[in-house]
Amino acid sequence: MRQDRIQNLIDALRVLPGVGPKSAQRLAFTLLQNEREGAQQLADAIDDALTHLRHCEKCYTLTDQALCQVCANPKRNEALLCVVQSPMDQLLIEQTMTYNGLYFVLMGKLNPLDGVGPQDIGMDALLKRAADGVVTEVILATHFTNEGELTAHYLGEQLIQKGLRVTRLAKGVPVGSELEQVDLGTLAQAMTGRRNTNM
Amino acid sequence: MRQDRIQNLIDALRVLPGVGPKSAQRLAFTLLQNEREGAQQLADAIDDALTHLRHCEKCYTLTDQALCQVCANPKRNEALLCVVQSPMDQLLIEQTMTYNGLYFVLMGKLNPLDGVGPQDIGMDALLKRAADGVVTEVILATHFTNEGELTAHYLGEQLIQKGLRVTRLAKGVPVGSELEQVDLGTLAQAMTGRRNTNM
Ligand SMILES: [Zn+2]
Ligand SMILES: [Zn+2]
Repeated sequence: MRQDRIQNLIDALRVLPGVGPKSAQRLAFTLLQNEREGAQQLADAIDDALTHLRHCEKCYTLTDQALCQVCANPKRNEALLCVVQSPMDQLLIEQTMTYNGLYFVLMGKLNPLDGVGPQDIGMDALLKRAADGVVTEVILATHFTNEGELTAHYLGEQLIQKGLRVTRLAKGVPVGSELEQVDLGTLAQAMTGRRNTNM
Repeated sequence: MRQDRIQNLIDALRVLPGVGPKSAQRLAFTLLQNEREGAQQLADAIDDALTHLRHCEKCYTLTDQALCQVCANPKRNEALLCVVQSPMDQLLIEQTMTYNGLYFVLMGKLNPLDGVGPQDIGMDALLKRAADGVVTEVILATHFTNEGELTAHYLGEQLIQKGLRVTRLAKGVPVGSELEQVDLGTLAQAMTGRRNTNM
């Protein structure tokens, strides 16, 4: 009288964001009936990633080496340090292929209401790293949310005190967007931060 | 110079229906950063299910025993045989708790345009099973789609020739829907109100 293994899989699929009981059930049977090979690859990939990924000793992103591929690359510009909220944000910036410096990955963002303070997200380590005498510019690439802005503001003040150049990603209208698709706050920022065209 | 393990996980997550490159990336980092325990449980559950689940020797649903929990249950009414398109549909009908008979799980549905004929979905085994002298009523619970109706029509004709009572889930399941798209209450109504096929 057991169908434990299927139910077990259905329950386990609920770990995926946005997957409720019914779609978990559908996913389970799709995997078991039509995607057995892919399902096995998924199980192996999760296993492998959980077993081997750890935090880079220098920038704290996720990696399977002591140093991540960016930190280990001698061609990167050590004078530039980009601060991000998470390993995923670090990867996103890498994927833009516009940045040649190094990173520092915070463990999240400041959130005083939830009791998340500077020490909880690794700011002390960041301030120490930024003051190593090699870094000259710190790019604060935290999110443009309340907590991300708070984090950038808090960090910026202390980094400027140390004599570093501190920059923030440009705010503006997303590439490919029509003006009517962005909110007025973004549009206002884009207007205020307008630049000379280099045509 | 490798971030293979993360990319490998991102790629593997694409096996999930509706997960594109960007959401696969988001899923991967969510699992690695915030849901490590759940991710391990998911990997184990997939592994375990793929290793141990096979087709029931009698009804062909997925089970980890020689006989599934329904076929192995002596309290089920052997005179009733419900024909479904998939193990998932079998589970859905079980979940309505309106049915006390046994099942036969087809391997899909007739689809002449794609060359899927009766032998491909196990119809011969079904006709043999239905003619075992114990079964008196066959409930055709294939989908109310074109292929599901075709399958029901084809089966119904042959089962009626064998002197069996042949019923279909009551309409009430919206025409054009798959079973998994309707709520359990509707499915329960359809089971309770099943009718003789008028062929
Ligand atoms: Zn690193
Ligand atoms: Zn069975």
